[in-house]
Amino acid sequence: MVPTLTQRLAAEFLGTALLLCTVIGSGIMGETLAGGNMAIALLANTIATGAMLVVLITMLGPISGAHFNPAVTAVFVARRETAPGDGAAYVLAQMAGAVLGVLAAHAMFDLPIFQLSQKARSGMTQGFSEWVATFGLVLTILLTLRTRAEAVAMSVGLYITAAYWFTASTSFANPAVTLARAFSDTFAGIRLADVPIFVAAQIVGAFCGLALVRLITHAQPAIDSSAVRMPAE
Amino acid sequence: MVPTLTQRLAAEFLGTALLLCTVIGSGIMGETLAGGNMAIALLANTIATGAMLVVLITMLGPISGAHFNPAVTAVFVARRETAPGDGAAYVLAQMAGAVLGVLAAHAMFDLPIFQLSQKARSGMTQGFSEWVATFGLVLTILLTLRTRAEAVAMSVGLYITAAYWFTASTSFANPAVTLARAFSDTFAGIRLADVPIFVAAQIVGAFCGLALVRLITHAQPAIDSSAVRMPAE
Amino acid sequence: MVPTLTQRLAAEFLGTALLLCTVIGSGIMGETLAGGNMAIALLANTIATGAMLVVLITMLGPISGAHFNPAVTAVFVARRETAPGDGAAYVLAQMAGAVLGVLAAHAMFDLPIFQLSQKARSGMTQGFSEWVATFGLVLTILLTLRTRAEAVAMSVGLYITAAYWFTASTSFANPAVTLARAFSDTFAGIRLADVPIFVAAQIVGAFCGLALVRLITHAQPAIDSSAVRMPAE
Amino acid sequence: MVPTLTQRLAAEFLGTALLLCTVIGSGIMGETLAGGNMAIALLANTIATGAMLVVLITMLGPISGAHFNPAVTAVFVARRETAPGDGAAYVLAQMAGAVLGVLAAHAMFDLPIFQLSQKARSGMTQGFSEWVATFGLVLTILLTLRTRAEAVAMSVGLYITAAYWFTASTSFANPAVTLARAFSDTFAGIRLADVPIFVAAQIVGAFCGLALVRLITHAQPAIDSSAVRMPAE
Repeated sequence: MVPTLTQRLAAEFLGTALLLCTVIGSGIMGETLAGGNMAIALLANTIATGAMLVVLITMLGPISGAHFNPAVTAVFVARRETAPGDGAAYVLAQMAGAVLGVLAAHAMFDLPIFQLSQKARSGMTQGFSEWVATFGLVLTILLTLRTRAEAVAMSVGLYITAAYWFTASTSFANPAVTLARAFSDTFAGIRLADVPIFVAAQIVGAFCGLALVRLITHAQPAIDSSAVRMPAE
Repeated sequence: MVPTLTQRLAAEFLGTALLLCTVIGSGIMGETLAGGNMAIALLANTIATGAMLVVLITMLGPISGAHFNPAVTAVFVARRETAPGDGAAYVLAQMAGAVLGVLAAHAMFDLPIFQLSQKARSGMTQGFSEWVATFGLVLTILLTLRTRAEAVAMSVGLYITAAYWFTASTSFANPAVTLARAFSDTFAGIRLADVPIFVAAQIVGAFCGLALVRLITHAQPAIDSSAVRMPAE
Repeated sequence: MVPTLTQRLAAEFLGTALLLCTVIGSGIMGETLAGGNMAIALLANTIATGAMLVVLITMLGPISGAHFNPAVTAVFVARRETAPGDGAAYVLAQMAGAVLGVLAAHAMFDLPIFQLSQKARSGMTQGFSEWVATFGLVLTILLTLRTRAEAVAMSVGLYITAAYWFTASTSFANPAVTLARAFSDTFAGIRLADVPIFVAAQIVGAFCGLALVRLITHAQPAIDSSAVRMPAE
Repeated sequence: MVPTLTQRLAAEFLGTALLLCTVIGSGIMGETLAGGNMAIALLANTIATGAMLVVLITMLGPISGAHFNPAVTAVFVARRETAPGDGAAYVLAQMAGAVLGVLAAHAMFDLPIFQLSQKARSGMTQGFSEWVATFGLVLTILLTLRTRAEAVAMSVGLYITAAYWFTASTSFANPAVTLARAFSDTFAGIRLADVPIFVAAQIVGAFCGLALVRLITHAQPAIDSSAVRMPAE
């Protein structure tokens, strides 16, 4: 049976909530236990987030496509694989789920439920990092979907695992995640004032990724189609 | 050939024993070597436990279904996929295996075989953490089974890897594991007095997970079935 | 084409050499860089060894079966899946490869090529640990081979990853590995005097694993074979 | 449709750029956060690099073969699987991409864009390490491609994960990576003067790997072909 739109929105809400629960919760746990060594805290945060992404995309992909990310939804709308109205509803479900996930993490760790982050993440280099992070994420999703769709969950989990370390911003790469993290004054937080530049960079990065995918996978019209070698693979 | 009930119970006993051996043993080894850095000890405990879950579910799933967890068995009984009598026997086998695994870990590390944990894990937030942990575990199992059964072992291993860090309780998520850990006064232990609230939260969490899975995977009756688009996938 | 015996022996030699190169080399690198934190050194040693096992079993399994371990070869001889003469040749190739791998690791790290370990690993608990480690390894191999042969490489890599932490001996689980590690006075070494008890425990553990696999996978003779339900799976 | 040469070169350029971005960026992040513990810095560098290799080979393999490495391209030219002219173009694309990736990592971390490494990596043992590293990498690629082509991405990622630790040189194993790392005076850098010995050892190691693969997979001519047992697998 085709999942209903309500079921698909529930899947996006649930998945984004569990994702943020993981990002925030593992950040708190990592920082608490790491005794001041921020590399160990980030390693814990990385492993938990990467693992959870594989789990969530595997289990919810067949229901909603497992976007959990407004930038990804926007790309699928642009590709006409998601209807614009559905896309708008997806984004709202993602935003609501993300905020709920942050609040749930605070509740689990016995912290004030409502918080505002004071963590500055500003500057051109942070914006450039988010551009790279989201550009790479969209490449990963779209290129892997083309030929090895069953590998998307693992690839996205591993991509974010790498991107937490190779970008200077620890790769938020997701407008819903970014906004929600502004409501947590913990390890994974971001000052509300720094959110807009992150989100702008993410959206531009996502569409640059989409454009590049079109270029490197575009089939050239053959002048003489009978001369085109059709590979078995 | 169909495995006999005895063989299935042996598989549940063996799997739960090896799981607890791993949880307790790697906790002891991690704490011993980590020189006081609890994040490194938990990282070792996490990696060993997550890896072992993948191994055990892969190798014993074809025999018993690889529950290793009374809350999971209860959910399968509620879904009428496990007979109630078999379920009760599964739970006993899991409990016995779990305790044996704890004792074997103590023997390997030359510690007193019989111990009672003094580690307090109390408070509402611990209970809420266990609710979340088991809710998420049941979602992971049931939703992944629906469409990618061969991925369940990897997904459960990765889910617990994440949940060790994103919950405040380090995600026991299993009544047999919880009870057995009361008999180890080591890194992974829990005071016997704190076991009931953990177990209650786990069982409620498991059935909330089951209910949510029904909602988001329930097929709506079509008013005009000819109008329902049947996707190829 | 069927691989010749020479090719199969070359694969066993090569695989065991690369395995020991990894065990010894990553132990040296981990201890050198870890600044005295033995948990971090063992974590590096674990990740390298587990990863390499997946690689080696994947690439050499189709040629020789990828035993790399006399205890595993003995089990396959007992199951009549490897001819006794071939098995004896396998063990020699494994021993020779293991020693060469140790020497190569020493050469890479600019250490004396020939060494004798001074690291004591004695006592009943070490022997019991090796019994458990090899028992679990044989279970993992034989049970996974039955129904998901393509998962054996990943399962063995993950099993050893866990077993480095949940056993008190860091899970040698392999007579060729044990003997070769006696020739390295580095992180992963073992005193020659402690080798015999390790090897004895490993062989007993391996055959206990074999016996248990027979019990829990043995097909009961059906009194009335028409009454036996044949599952689709 | 067959990818055009331009598309294949774009894939090689892009993949090598993202690979270097990851190697350099995660090295900077790891060293910055690790508080002087070089094992933790290398662990972060390892996890990011291994994860990214799996992602890149999975997503770009179907377009260009995902070499990202002049030594690998040379091996495929020698096997007549890549045309010599295409191979030369691949190497140029890899070199250009590698350098761009280094510059992008510097930009993300707000460091001077153009740098020259001062990090000495000299001596016979470094060269021998690179020989071993590249020899093993070529074995991994060619032997895994023969029978489990879909596992190559995971195997290469795990091989490099192990090789970062078991070689004394942290396994560059790639002439384009080696040259580009000379332009970064950060954790993952290498002095320009030490590049030639690394590259020479890598190329010799790659061709030794190719030769060994031929030996252990070479089909013996059967004297009486009807006597050759053809295995089902």
